[in-house]
Amino acid sequence: MNALSDKTVGRLSLYRRLLNGLVADGVTHVYSHQLAVLAGGTAAQVRRDMMAVGYTGSPKRGYDIRELAQSIGAFMDAPEGQGVALIGVGNLGRAILAYFAGRRPHLAIQAAFDADPYKANRVIHGCHCYPMTEMDTIAAKANIRTAIIAVPATEAQAVAAKLVRAGVRGILNFAPIRLHLPAEVYVEDIDMTMSLEKVAYFSRKGRAEKEVNS
Amino acid sequence: MNALSDKTVGRLSLYRRLLNGLVADGVTHVYSHQLAVLAGGTAAQVRRDMMAVGYTGSPKRGYDIRELAQSIGAFMDAPEGQGVALIGVGNLGRAILAYFAGRRPHLAIQAAFDADPYKANRVIHGCHCYPMTEMDTIAAKANIRTAIIAVPATEAQAVAAKLVRAGVRGILNFAPIRLHLPAEVYVEDIDMTMSLEKVAYFSRKGRAEKEVNS
Repeated sequence: MNALSDKTVGRLSLYRRLLNGLVADGVTHVYSHQLAVLAGGTAAQVRRDMMAVGYTGSPKRGYDIRELAQSIGAFMDAPEGQGVALIGVGNLGRAILAYFAGRRPHLAIQAAFDADPYKANRVIHGCHCYPMTEMDTIAAKANIRTAIIAVPATEAQAVAAKLVRAGVRGILNFAPIRLHLPAEVYVEDIDMTMSLEKVAYFSRKGRAEKEVNS
Repeated sequence: MNALSDKTVGRLSLYRRLLNGLVADGVTHVYSHQLAVLAGGTAAQVRRDMMAVGYTGSPKRGYDIRELAQSIGAFMDAPEGQGVALIGVGNLGRAILAYFAGRRPHLAIQAAFDADPYKANRVIHGCHCYPMTEMDTIAAKANIRTAIIAVPATEAQAVAAKLVRAGVRGILNFAPIRLHLPAEVYVEDIDMTMSLEKVAYFSRKGRAEKEVNS
């Protein structure tokens, strides 16, 4: 299989969820141009992405939705499942636990960590919380390579460095700070406050300003 | 004041939170190059952004942090405060309510709505939840122009169209679907599942593949 860009992997994630939605609605087949409308892309791009996972539909009936979702899963998911660690069990961390609880069997938050000992040794939304001091041991034992950072901005860099030393190679970072890490570590940032403040600003000032570069 | 790009507005939101973090640490002044390191940009960009909000620091002492944070606030915030509506009070919606509860006095989720009548007429994380049928009336009365969508993908387009008819001009969309809306409506997408799936994929397959375009 070919190496893929992060945009392609993002689209595959989206396609799979759209396909699962169609299955839930009782649909069995879909054409590339229909999937393209749902995903906000072009039919040619959908077909290229599907070729990348090694699936080709029938020109007459379109893609078999169940087969296609399985092909994407075989491509994206670790066959043995993949554990994720969450660092920071404050307001945001608990919200993240609630959101992902039971959502992805192949990609579950296996352990949460917090520097505050009062937050440790509890089970929150089905996830066991440990003190930060146990992070290295538990991450190594469970072979955890993926982590979510939900600590305050001032602690995020130190936490990220500690995660990388413990073997983590991919980080979803909710802290509003740019992490400085070795090039082989993949980082994706989500800043919910920034996103809401942008939306609020442009909903007052008007969308046209989006196009103006200052 | 000049019209700003959405990237500039995003950086101003980030600067303000970094500045508030420095105030909490007892720092009173900061140089543009120091702020640039924290924000992951260049000193020249920081200075351009600050000029856009009409603030100039002293070359000797740098920016006065409190004054600068206030200047950004005067630029970004509605003086009378700004109400936000949340649509969808499922797992994700409740997580969003928990995250934003009490966080931004000038930008509070004033009302939540859900199609499920059992979720309405409750107070969740300090926010009153109403049935979807009352959305138009309440949004108009409270002059709500900003909304967060946290409904399933299959319902998001209909909800977004209803919001726009009720006067909403900015949407933070957590549903994994591309919304088709009039050009004057500003939309920002956050897809937490896609982000986590990308991070998980590259933490297994290696960061180098990020650079390869398929």
